[in-house]
Amino acid sequence: MADPQGERAKEAVAGLDGVAVHTDPVAALEAPGVSAVLIASPGPAHEEALLAAFERGLPVLCEKPMVPDSTGALRVVEAEARLGRRLAQIGFMRRYDAEYRRLKALLDGGSLGRPLMLHCTHRNVSSPPDFTSAMLINSSVAHEIDAARWLLGQELTAVTVLRPASSAGAPEGLIDPQFVLFETERGALVDVEVFVNCGFGYQVRCEAVCEAGSARIGDEHTMLVTRRGSAAEEVAQDYLVRFADAYDREVQAWVDATRRGEVTGPSVWDGYAASVVAEAGVRALETGGRVAVDLAPRPDLYAGVSR
Amino acid sequence: MADPQGERAKEAVAGLDGVAVHTDPVAALEAPGVSAVLIASPGPAHEEALLAAFERGLPVLCEKPMVPDSTGALRVVEAEARLGRRLAQIGFMRRYDAEYRRLKALLDGGSLGRPLMLHCTHRNVSSPPDFTSAMLINSSVAHEIDAARWLLGQELTAVTVLRPASSAGAPEGLIDPQFVLFETERGALVDVEVFVNCGFGYQVRCEAVCEAGSARIGDEHTMLVTRRGSAAEEVAQDYLVRFADAYDREVQAWVDATRRGEVTGPSVWDGYAASVVAEAGVRALETGGRVAVDLAPRPDLYAGVSR
Amino acid sequence: MADPQGERAKEAVAGLDGVAVHTDPVAALEAPGVSAVLIASPGPAHEEALLAAFERGLPVLCEKPMVPDSTGALRVVEAEARLGRRLAQIGFMRRYDAEYRRLKALLDGGSLGRPLMLHCTHRNVSSPPDFTSAMLINSSVAHEIDAARWLLGQELTAVTVLRPASSAGAPEGLIDPQFVLFETERGALVDVEVFVNCGFGYQVRCEAVCEAGSARIGDEHTMLVTRRGSAAEEVAQDYLVRFADAYDREVQAWVDATRRGEVTGPSVWDGYAASVVAEAGVRALETGGRVAVDLAPRPDLYAGVSR
Amino acid sequence: MADPQGERAKEAVAGLDGVAVHTDPVAALEAPGVSAVLIASPGPAHEEALLAAFERGLPVLCEKPMVPDSTGALRVVEAEARLGRRLAQIGFMRRYDAEYRRLKALLDGGSLGRPLMLHCTHRNVSSPPDFTSAMLINSSVAHEIDAARWLLGQELTAVTVLRPASSAGAPEGLIDPQFVLFETERGALVDVEVFVNCGFGYQVRCEAVCEAGSARIGDEHTMLVTRRGSAAEEVAQDYLVRFADAYDREVQAWVDATRRGEVTGPSVWDGYAASVVAEAGVRALETGGRVAVDLAPRPDLYAGVSR
Repeated sequence: MADPQGERAKEAVAGLDGVAVHTDPVAALEAPGVSAVLIASPGPAHEEALLAAFERGLPVLCEKPMVPDSTGALRVVEAEARLGRRLAQIGFMRRYDAEYRRLKALLDGGSLGRPLMLHCTHRNVSSPPDFTSAMLINSSVAHEIDAARWLLGQELTAVTVLRPASSAGAPEGLIDPQFVLFETERGALVDVEVFVNCGFGYQVRCEAVCEAGSARIGDEHTMLVTRRGSAAEEVAQDYLVRFADAYDREVQAWVDATRRGEVTGPSVWDGYAASVVAEAGVRALETGGRVAVDLAPRPDLYAGVSR
Repeated sequence: MADPQGERAKEAVAGLDGVAVHTDPVAALEAPGVSAVLIASPGPAHEEALLAAFERGLPVLCEKPMVPDSTGALRVVEAEARLGRRLAQIGFMRRYDAEYRRLKALLDGGSLGRPLMLHCTHRNVSSPPDFTSAMLINSSVAHEIDAARWLLGQELTAVTVLRPASSAGAPEGLIDPQFVLFETERGALVDVEVFVNCGFGYQVRCEAVCEAGSARIGDEHTMLVTRRGSAAEEVAQDYLVRFADAYDREVQAWVDATRRGEVTGPSVWDGYAASVVAEAGVRALETGGRVAVDLAPRPDLYAGVSR
Repeated sequence: MADPQGERAKEAVAGLDGVAVHTDPVAALEAPGVSAVLIASPGPAHEEALLAAFERGLPVLCEKPMVPDSTGALRVVEAEARLGRRLAQIGFMRRYDAEYRRLKALLDGGSLGRPLMLHCTHRNVSSPPDFTSAMLINSSVAHEIDAARWLLGQELTAVTVLRPASSAGAPEGLIDPQFVLFETERGALVDVEVFVNCGFGYQVRCEAVCEAGSARIGDEHTMLVTRRGSAAEEVAQDYLVRFADAYDREVQAWVDATRRGEVTGPSVWDGYAASVVAEAGVRALETGGRVAVDLAPRPDLYAGVSR
Repeated sequence: MADPQGERAKEAVAGLDGVAVHTDPVAALEAPGVSAVLIASPGPAHEEALLAAFERGLPVLCEKPMVPDSTGALRVVEAEARLGRRLAQIGFMRRYDAEYRRLKALLDGGSLGRPLMLHCTHRNVSSPPDFTSAMLINSSVAHEIDAARWLLGQELTAVTVLRPASSAGAPEGLIDPQFVLFETERGALVDVEVFVNCGFGYQVRCEAVCEAGSARIGDEHTMLVTRRGSAAEEVAQDYLVRFADAYDREVQAWVDATRRGEVTGPSVWDGYAASVVAEAGVRALETGGRVAVDLAPRPDLYAGVSR
């Protein structure tokens, strides 16, 4: 791990075996055993780190913005193009969001026809100090820029920014909200409301309007698809889809607790009680009547129903 | 790893360093370096494995059902109680589902007052072969039994099972759906529709009706809370909540691709294009006009907008 | 019009031409020009009024409950059956609610298969003074009794009432909420949560669970239908459906204002402004540019944009 | 009633007492007993009819467009302004829609702060023959023009129309969809997607984005209000709100059936059955057990549960 502040790095990796700490990123790249690189430093440091990884043939995951200015970004493109093979993955994480992926799959599937418009919303509760009017575009809308290119599979060809009256909730001088219009190479229109001091929540929404229907994500953790006569959400077909997060969290909670030397979660008393109730339930099914549940006395170890 | 079918186990751990394969679970427990045990064998094998882990003082995560019959389950309780400390976490994974956790936190917070009723739904598209009428209770409703005990912090005291007309979509002779009523030690009522051949989807829902409001989970990946005059969903307050899954998937996709020797996901061309568009956007903001986006020629390596 | 309190009746019909006021309902029925009868008196007065209307062959709309006790109700049935033709419509108004009608049409259409269960909710903010535990059944659930019979096209054959712990928000001694289970002649199950001091709102919901899907009304003014893999709402196909209520209210508002000698609503200034803006919009479409809207000075008569 | 096609008019008023039919609208205005005028003729006929009504001091409800061109519209404004009092209500019926009224009340109430943007959608399944690109503005968006002026209480000051690629579902040569941007006198921005051959439904939506929250109508027959941390719908507080439409339809159905000499709707058998079931329910409440429902034999007159 490399961090100019070595102490901070040491804290971060405390408890992990075999992680060396460096203050110089290039030295870190050259350390033995390095097979891939994750760049999460501030944007201005990315170009040098990317080029160094390219030289060494190391695969790299680089946080966005890849490089803050387009001239430097082009140098990175040219360097990788000269290598003739891809080494870098850029951190546009929306492409990995479950809702965006469903929307992308729907659009690519073609059942809604050609996309004509994307209506996008990007709202933050409040902006950080020193946030400038330009940053609404190059920091916030930057996400919509990549999402629109990816969803549509088209380059953006022109942009216009409208300025409605700024909110009294925005810092003095900040142009907020803004309304941004993008045109694409095949004539689609992308509009983005960006409002970084909306006060009420973090909302990222996208509605794709196509020739044969529309689809909207971001209101709930689901996708609403409107086609001939109906506005529908998909219903999960099995428990692995519905409870994927629960299974992950369950095992992680167990691993974490075990590392701390603790045991948490549902206890054997819970397992026993479930068993007794289920047996009573089966008898109730068989007899048609009400069946009382008869539990053994609860050992003190399990005082209270477990939390 | 232990599996009576050693070959299957060998396949499962191929590519993982330092994992020994056993066919006898107790031998596996005694192998050097074992510090915790995950039991995912069929239910009848659980009791022996749990007791063996207890003897060796090993923390254990045991899949549900803990032990298929309540007599064996009580033996496990007594064995752990004799140890005087908890070693086992039972695999009731709903307690780790995001929606259930929000509901639990809301009920425990007390703002809705005392819970009076839980209305639960448990629907599967279709049941596996050989699924019996009793298994609707002891396999399917088993989840609601634990969830109700946990959500309410109360033991269940009686159960009644009603049998509406069975669906034509259920296998001959299966009593499906069933409607199960539980009473609790402090007078709450829990009703469960269990319908394992509903044909249309996997749906798990729970509405808690309390003295000062109700809350429902399971319709969307959100929780709807009804209180004085309003039915509301929580709006996320920051991107870490909204895009937690995207960040996890992004890094996992990178790790997986790197292991396969591939590079996937957003490319440096995407990083470059985003940078050019953002710069055009900032100019559009400053000038108030429409600004064309001027990209360099795209190297062949990045043919097409990346998918 | 007949009302034992003649003064109250006189007030009610003030301003309507040709309406005679009576204190005796039977005298009112015999008055010249009476061609139909609407009975909105308290329940105990209904039987006599219905029988009197039957004797005179008058069609009648009678508020629910038709007759408070079933013995009297049976006398009314027998009287009309002797006539050999129907004269009475009973005021179960849910059969005329848009959502209930959509649900009924869906069930009758048969696409969801046979209904197996109805899950019903009936919640009031608070109960009137002197509301008794029995009135939760015979006044509140009375609506679900008719709705279930009508939706299913089946008689109810048995009933069970469960008593969860009563809410602290209910008056001392009132058993509230209650959970009522009805069985039907073809084996469907109807469960009703009735909670007349829920505190938060008036909610009437019904979910019909069928062999091939489920449909729920009452959450929004829409119907959610879940079938193979999708949970969908119908999208209106034309403006007459979407804005039916607006057209009715518009004309009614005009008639009401005209009667009061007033003119309200959108003004000719609004008509003019819309016309100017639309013309500017058409020019903007033709030119591709931004077109300013140029309004004539606004006469004082239309100060402010009309409300 | 006046209609240039007198026969059509005669059919329309058949069965209504005391309605005279005219082919000349001005003659109709001068007929005895005329106290108010409803103009539903094609737009080009409106100006003459409005001015004639003004001369005679008659209140008038005039369908939109008030007058097709703004010059004629201004003449109407000037004529009424000369009278010094309002006589005309223009048929912008959205102002009478329940959802729009809720949104208007919310904005006027001020709790969301100043409105900054309106995002509007206007979609039709398909356009009528001979619909032109200009008519998307002056016939369809005309509704949003009035709605925006009314909701915001501001005049619109400029307009821009963007043309995304037209849908393959639109007739050859029709520019459809269009994206229209309005600016207002106090700096709000109104954007309108108008798409009159969307194929899937009639959708009219409006989201008002304000300084302290946003509110959206048109997705369901409800309004979703997002404020600090929550997205909420209002829950009705009593049955008069929830079932207002049912009561209206119930009485109307009775009046209509009575006029046709028929009796429809819930029968006295339904009233009787409800009474028997309610009595059984009360016994079930009192005894805690299951109580069978015992109906008298059903007279043939009531064969089947009434529909």
